[in-house]
Amino acid sequence: MCDTCGCEEHTHTHAAPAPAGTIPVVQNILSANEQAARHNRAHFAAHGIVAVNVMSSPGSGKTTLLMATIAALQGRRRIGVIEGDVASQVDAERIATTGTPVVQINTGGGCHLDAPQIHDALHALPEGQLDLLFIENVGNLICPVSFDLGETRKVALLSVPEGDDKPYKYPGIFEAVDLVLVTKADLLPVLDFDLEAFRALVQGLNPEAQIFALSAKTGEGMEPWLAWLEAQQ
Amino acid sequence: MCDTCGCEEHTHTHAAPAPAGTIPVVQNILSANEQAARHNRAHFAAHGIVAVNVMSSPGSGKTTLLMATIAALQGRRRIGVIEGDVASQVDAERIATTGTPVVQINTGGGCHLDAPQIHDALHALPEGQLDLLFIENVGNLICPVSFDLGETRKVALLSVPEGDDKPYKYPGIFEAVDLVLVTKADLLPVLDFDLEAFRALVQGLNPEAQIFALSAKTGEGMEPWLAWLEAQQ
Repeated sequence: MCDTCGCEEHTHTHAAPAPAGTIPVVQNILSANEQAARHNRAHFAAHGIVAVNVMSSPGSGKTTLLMATIAALQGRRRIGVIEGDVASQVDAERIATTGTPVVQINTGGGCHLDAPQIHDALHALPEGQLDLLFIENVGNLICPVSFDLGETRKVALLSVPEGDDKPYKYPGIFEAVDLVLVTKADLLPVLDFDLEAFRALVQGLNPEAQIFALSAKTGEGMEPWLAWLEAQQ
Repeated sequence: MCDTCGCEEHTHTHAAPAPAGTIPVVQNILSANEQAARHNRAHFAAHGIVAVNVMSSPGSGKTTLLMATIAALQGRRRIGVIEGDVASQVDAERIATTGTPVVQINTGGGCHLDAPQIHDALHALPEGQLDLLFIENVGNLICPVSFDLGETRKVALLSVPEGDDKPYKYPGIFEAVDLVLVTKADLLPVLDFDLEAFRALVQGLNPEAQIFALSAKTGEGMEPWLAWLEAQQ
C-alpha cells in the first residue's frame, strides 16, 4: 500500500512535500490527468485487461463497430464498454442490448474523455471479470488524442464518407494511434475515396500504424481487426 | 475614433482604468474573444458583409458546399472565404481554383477558430469588395460553437452518413445555429437516415432553426440554401 495516499498500487510516486515556509505548486490539469492515467494503466495490467481507446469523428461508426465486434467475440473474450458522449445515453443503450457491461460517461459539453473519468467508470464495471475493455471516446478527431487514459492501445476510425484527405488536416490523431480502421468500406464502390492514397498519407505520418479497411455492417474485412484484438492479450 | 484604443469603431467600450494602487484584473480568454468578436461584427456591419460561420464534423462536405455555392452565386454576390484547419491548406487551395479570395488559418492543434484569428484574416481579404464571407470552421461538432466570431449567421452541416441521432449526442451546436443543412442528401436512398426524425430532434432543441436537405454533388436541394443566403443581405 502507498504510504502517502493509501492506494494499493505500488508503482506510483508522489511529489515531495513543499519545504516549510514555501507555497506548494498546484499541479496542472495535464499532470493530474497523467497521474490518473498511470493508475488506470496499473489497474489494467494487474487485472489482465486490454483497454482499447476508440477515437473518431462523430458518426464514423464506433458504436456499430463495437456491436459487431461484441457479437463476433462472444464466448472468446469477456468484454466491457465505456461510452463517452457530450450528452445522452443512446450509445450505451445499444451496447446494453447485447448483455455487455457498459458505463455511460456524459461530459456535459467536454470534447474528450479524461483519465479520472475512466477511473470512476472502472468502479462501475464488474471487477476481475473482463479481458477486453473498449473505451468509446467522444466523437471528435482533434481533442481526445491529447489525453492519455492509461489505455493499452489507441485506435482511430475514419469512415469512407469523410474523405481520404483527412490525415492532411488532422495529423495529430493519425500520428498517435496503433491502428487505423477505415470504416464503412461497403461505400468504397460508390464514393470517391482512394484507399491507397489514404494508406500512403497515414504511413507518412506514422510508419508503425497498421491500417485495415472494414464494414461492420456487411462484416467484410472484420477478421484482421478481430485477430489484431486477440493478439493484444 | 475611440480615444482609448484609436480604432475607428464607435460602438465599443473599454473597462475603466484600475484605480491607482490597485492591480488591474486581466480579462479572461472568453471576454478577450468577445471583444474581438464585437470588433468583427462592427466591421461586417460597416462594410455590408454577411459573414456565415459554417460548422460541422470533419468530412461533412463544408468545402464541397462552398465550391458549389460559389459557382451558383457567381456574378450575384462578391464572395470571400476564410478556411480554418488544424493543419494544411488543401481546402484553401480548392477554393482558390475558383478565383475567390481566400485566407487559410492553421490552428496548429486548436480545435476551433476564434475571433482574433478572424480579425487578422480580415486584413488579408480585399477591403470594401465583399458581400458574403464564408468562415469554414475547423471540423468539430463540439468546440467551435462556443466561440463567437462576430459572424452574422451560424450554420451547421450534418451529413447523411453521420446518422440522424447526432442531435441527441451533440445538442449544443444544434441549439445555437440559425440553419441546419443535411448534406450528402444523394445518399439518403442508400443509407439509414430518417430525415423526419432528424427534423423533429432539431426542432425540439431549436424551434427557430431552418432545416434544408441538399447535395452539393448533384445540385439537388441547393435552391433553398441559395435563397436563404441571398435573403440575409
